[in-house]
Amino acid sequence: MEFNSDDFLPGVSIDCVVFGFENGTLKVLLTKWKGLNEWSLPGGHVLKEEDPDDASRRILEDRTGLKNIFLDQFKVFGAPDRIPKEAIKNGPTLESLPDDARAWILQRFITIGYLALIDIRKADIKPDHVADKIGWWPVTQMPDLIFDHAEIVNVAVKELKIQLNYLPLGLNLLPEKFTMNELQQLYENILGKQLDRGNFQKKILKLDILERLEKLKLGGAHKAPYLYRFDKQKYRDLLSQGIGL
Amino acid sequence: MEFNSDDFLPGVSIDCVVFGFENGTLKVLLTKWKGLNEWSLPGGHVLKEEDPDDASRRILEDRTGLKNIFLDQFKVFGAPDRIPKEAIKNGPTLESLPDDARAWILQRFITIGYLALIDIRKADIKPDHVADKIGWWPVTQMPDLIFDHAEIVNVAVKELKIQLNYLPLGLNLLPEKFTMNELQQLYENILGKQLDRGNFQKKILKLDILERLEKLKLGGAHKAPYLYRFDKQKYRDLLSQGIGL
Repeated sequence: MEFNSDDFLPGVSIDCVVFGFENGTLKVLLTKWKGLNEWSLPGGHVLKEEDPDDASRRILEDRTGLKNIFLDQFKVFGAPDRIPKEAIKNGPTLESLPDDARAWILQRFITIGYLALIDIRKADIKPDHVADKIGWWPVTQMPDLIFDHAEIVNVAVKELKIQLNYLPLGLNLLPEKFTMNELQQLYENILGKQLDRGNFQKKILKLDILERLEKLKLGGAHKAPYLYRFDKQKYRDLLSQGIGL
Repeated sequence: MEFNSDDFLPGVSIDCVVFGFENGTLKVLLTKWKGLNEWSLPGGHVLKEEDPDDASRRILEDRTGLKNIFLDQFKVFGAPDRIPKEAIKNGPTLESLPDDARAWILQRFITIGYLALIDIRKADIKPDHVADKIGWWPVTQMPDLIFDHAEIVNVAVKELKIQLNYLPLGLNLLPEKFTMNELQQLYENILGKQLDRGNFQKKILKLDILERLEKLKLGGAHKAPYLYRFDKQKYRDLLSQGIGL
């Protein structure tokens, strides 16, 4: 799709912090604009008659091939100096753009932050028209990011920690069947600390949203752990009520 | 202050859901535009070089006389049809405005929702230049509101319920000294349900953020309840950590 700035609302942008979980590690989806050294969050703009929630879904479907992604509009980032004009004015990407496109990029943008949880195994990621790279980066080993994108990621991770306190998370991040150990690793990754195994298992099972399935088939002499699956109906009920006080 | 639309960012507005607590009732601050029948949330716009967070503080200081209000930017409301143009185009307020001011009001606005908790006893409320009334309304007995403001209030109340699960709330809503009963009433108002007295007291005291003071002086034969005060240092520590898992 050709980008035409007349199609979009001026002054407002969308940035998505897309979390995935792979090999026991919490990751974030990042993309890299042609000619820039820093990476950035996947994002875009809002069509003149579009709801920002729909815009974020459109943008992420474009980047990942996934429809109906779990999205939470968690924060607005609007500091007047969040895009340091001097830093990008001479960037190689901007130089090559026509005047009106450059003026569009250089205006002040208030950006709406969305947080998404997706199953990395199901995503078919591809960069947009101004980017030449897209990839998953561990939250703990991020490259340099443009503008205030590092802050946006930090706030999203904090928000995820808060949500762990009152929402069951995991349905969108884990494969359909998983071990208790994988679920605990996910929580530990988000919280950034180790959890006691017995306590974790007790608290999670008490929520009554997991179905216990067959044991995982392992070669060798290890004791095989059980596989679990979320009971989607109970999960959704709990999601709508909150775990709460 | 004279309103000049050139001073402000186009397309973005601010709406504040300001909660107060009085006579055992959770209330919201509402204002009424001259010539309209519906009430609205106190709100405004963002100056061209202003941070939206600063804009919301400026707007609320203007409406309440209070500085440093506890503010939380909780959600963006951006549906393209959230301001039904036909409904306001012929409103008595708009008719009397010059063309450019009318065009300003009729543009599409994405509004940033802020939630504030204030002590009603300290607020000196006054309407802005387009309004002739301002007042506190019980959350359970709201008048008709313009645009999507009823939805904005509903989402703010839900957000407050969620925050009760992981944050100690009350410092900004209650007078300096209060009884356990008043604190419980505040929680019951926000949650919209009755709580068990013994359980509530046990959970709150376990957080170790209250100082017990002298007994409330009552006339008559009633057993006098203790007064409490938040230990502000412990309260702030807990606020920054979250009550959490």
